[in-house]
Amino acid sequence: MNTFTSVKQLGDLKKALEAAKYVTANPFADKALGQDKTVLLVFFNNSLRTRLSTQKAALNLGMNVMVLDVNQGAWKLETARGVVMDGDKSEHLLEAIPVMGSYADIIGVRSFARFESREDDYNEVILNQFIKYSGKPVFSMEAAIRHPLQTFADLITIEQYRQKARPKVVMTWAPHPKALPQAVPNSFAEGMSMTDFDFVIANPEGYDLAPEFTKGIRVTHNQDEALEGADFVYAKNWASYEHYGQVLSKDMNWTVTKQKMALTNDAFFLHCLPVRRNMIVSDEVIESPRSLVIPEAANRVVSAQTVLKMLLQDL
Amino acid sequence: MNTFTSVKQLGDLKKALEAAKYVTANPFADKALGQDKTVLLVFFNNSLRTRLSTQKAALNLGMNVMVLDVNQGAWKLETARGVVMDGDKSEHLLEAIPVMGSYADIIGVRSFARFESREDDYNEVILNQFIKYSGKPVFSMEAAIRHPLQTFADLITIEQYRQKARPKVVMTWAPHPKALPQAVPNSFAEGMSMTDFDFVIANPEGYDLAPEFTKGIRVTHNQDEALEGADFVYAKNWASYEHYGQVLSKDMNWTVTKQKMALTNDAFFLHCLPVRRNMIVSDEVIESPRSLVIPEAANRVVSAQTVLKMLLQDL
Amino acid sequence: MNTFTSVKQLGDLKKALEAAKYVTANPFADKALGQDKTVLLVFFNNSLRTRLSTQKAALNLGMNVMVLDVNQGAWKLETARGVVMDGDKSEHLLEAIPVMGSYADIIGVRSFARFESREDDYNEVILNQFIKYSGKPVFSMEAAIRHPLQTFADLITIEQYRQKARPKVVMTWAPHPKALPQAVPNSFAEGMSMTDFDFVIANPEGYDLAPEFTKGIRVTHNQDEALEGADFVYAKNWASYEHYGQVLSKDMNWTVTKQKMALTNDAFFLHCLPVRRNMIVSDEVIESPRSLVIPEAANRVVSAQTVLKMLLQDL
Repeated sequence: MNTFTSVKQLGDLKKALEAAKYVTANPFADKALGQDKTVLLVFFNNSLRTRLSTQKAALNLGMNVMVLDVNQGAWKLETARGVVMDGDKSEHLLEAIPVMGSYADIIGVRSFARFESREDDYNEVILNQFIKYSGKPVFSMEAAIRHPLQTFADLITIEQYRQKARPKVVMTWAPHPKALPQAVPNSFAEGMSMTDFDFVIANPEGYDLAPEFTKGIRVTHNQDEALEGADFVYAKNWASYEHYGQVLSKDMNWTVTKQKMALTNDAFFLHCLPVRRNMIVSDEVIESPRSLVIPEAANRVVSAQTVLKMLLQDL
Repeated sequence: MNTFTSVKQLGDLKKALEAAKYVTANPFADKALGQDKTVLLVFFNNSLRTRLSTQKAALNLGMNVMVLDVNQGAWKLETARGVVMDGDKSEHLLEAIPVMGSYADIIGVRSFARFESREDDYNEVILNQFIKYSGKPVFSMEAAIRHPLQTFADLITIEQYRQKARPKVVMTWAPHPKALPQAVPNSFAEGMSMTDFDFVIANPEGYDLAPEFTKGIRVTHNQDEALEGADFVYAKNWASYEHYGQVLSKDMNWTVTKQKMALTNDAFFLHCLPVRRNMIVSDEVIESPRSLVIPEAANRVVSAQTVLKMLLQDL
Repeated sequence: MNTFTSVKQLGDLKKALEAAKYVTANPFADKALGQDKTVLLVFFNNSLRTRLSTQKAALNLGMNVMVLDVNQGAWKLETARGVVMDGDKSEHLLEAIPVMGSYADIIGVRSFARFESREDDYNEVILNQFIKYSGKPVFSMEAAIRHPLQTFADLITIEQYRQKARPKVVMTWAPHPKALPQAVPNSFAEGMSMTDFDFVIANPEGYDLAPEFTKGIRVTHNQDEALEGADFVYAKNWASYEHYGQVLSKDMNWTVTKQKMALTNDAFFLHCLPVRRNMIVSDEVIESPRSLVIPEAANRVVSAQTVLKMLLQDL
């Protein structure tokens, strides 16, 4: 593997989950692999879990880690071509990227959707420039339309907790005060398409995800119906794809409450975090014994370490 | 030791000072102890000495170090329970803390008094949530009402410089333009209560520390009287405890000047830093040969390393 | 070597370039040298290349690295003496520097010209306080009037690409929207004075560099004339020295374009980065095969590692 921008690049999911299981059991077994290798983590956006779990994963592999917050302590970067750079941006990505590439063996990039142009976001303009110009293996730490390290952690978590071969998994939209990217739900749908689970997406009208991510997947606008018999409930807010980046609804009837969970088959609750309590999910659901949000977050180390290991093996 | 939030947790002070002496002489002797162990340093507030000395201490012990500035590059954290999170805070401490715990073996936390509620501050709401929810050993890098790593460094410094078994130590309030927490003076008083030194606190009326920290300690409102015959002068500003968080005085007669030091037994001068020159202390006193502020700061590495070593030994 | 603030401290340039060549070929050969040694990188200003390349260099040498952004997460520092510190600055450099010194074996400092006083800038007030008070070897990561790590990287790059013993090297001023320090051009002129290259500086009237840096160097106000037959073109903006810190011209006739490069001997193009495209240099020149800006930036690791190695050897 020399790039990781979609969970589909894991290839054979069964093998990837086995690799993750090995990493879980043997976190320090591959320290020789990362020796004298440096991973650079480039953040255009805030991060807690990704920042820490990816550092931890790299340190477990014996790597050197450098963290760059682009908007703190570095230069503001121009991303458009052909511009006369007489404004507040001191440097162009076209220089910054190959320079970063020359200082690192592997580069992780976090670059969220900007909601300025659906086309730009869905073309992953920033991430793809890193791939094109850095000269080094690049992995996504959440880009505009996918968050594959999160999805891999989700898959690992479901694998650890599922009690049947083919669980029913429901991803449900839930309300949130601000416009959020579609990276996590897109990516989770991709991950589910790699399984034979019974997967359903529930969201209000106007919130259907991009067709390229929902092809062949059951989508309903009736949350209660979707939740019936669910083994896993994956809650997430996202802004509209159709009316791109807009918040069409903050309908608190979509909040995942105890009453909603009562419709399920005593489902486990999943969320990628950070989560707005009592918007996305009620206190009692997220604090219940069926909530897996903490082991799910803990699996972010396993996910990142398994991916970094694959990238290191193919350097 | 599996938590370090008060200097009293050092237990036998004599043994702790011996452990510190060993660390001073053998800074790299315990690198095997920290191997494959990660300490996460979480800062809710600014830091220079604590940030660097704690990193250095952990590196000396062979540990991996991750630094998280909560207000830079991470999500703003909600700390109150039961809130509908529809504002600017994206994540709740109740999720963030166990997640951080899952990425680290030991967690250091800096969380100053907020002066919004004396009760909240004196209940150490943030620090105690880390202890309760992280699942990992937690140590204070200055919390709302104590700064035990500083006090331990102070004790180490006094031990190195005292010329008699029972020196007279005076902690004196001094003026400052802004409201400062009581963590350092509270903690220093705690440290002194572990010794049999002749300890006196001098502060203006209205500035008496919380009774729980001054029980059995002589407190005077007459600085000159206190300074008489002192072997060590520990200067510090703090805001009022009684009129909680208020600045009642900026009386420059309390500034530690050459004239004030002339009242002492050629005392050593101590301050935890950062210090406002010519408010707390005059240039000539802080630059004099009796000023110990730099060795005192240098001892922050020894203090942190000794404590981290104890935490590692009991993992 | 126990300080590195000017490229002249490299002494014998030929030997220094050989040392750099060795480091390029054997990046991990000296990891024992840096073991248990900590470098502290102190940034008063933004940084991308210096931040990453110096970290990388130190890690290649097996060192521990601590990064401190003075204006983020630390205390604001007072730099003037004798001040009553009742404003927004919590700490004085006179305390902060020896404290930092006590936590590190080697200190790197970035402190740009402030353009408040030419005298202060040209006296390197901040950098020299670090040298005077830290008690540790100090190296410049760009100070007010010199950027020696950059110049050393420039010299290494020219050495790698020159096709004749005595190439013609032209440093030309180019337009920029804001006032920039003279550190890079001063330092590059110093570097050229260590060679026997045919070196010319071209800049508009009013932009002559300080006499101490241009002594014995040909300076012209005619860019076209200077570019004729050039083997290397080093573009850079700087604010006026004479009318200190002022932007006297944004004349786009000084932009390095394809037409300008046609005057040269198919010259290589150099710039320290970050660069304002279509102000300093046109897209087509910086993207051309003769542009060396990326290998030049990559050599920042070699430059820093060679210097750190010299500092470590003399600890």
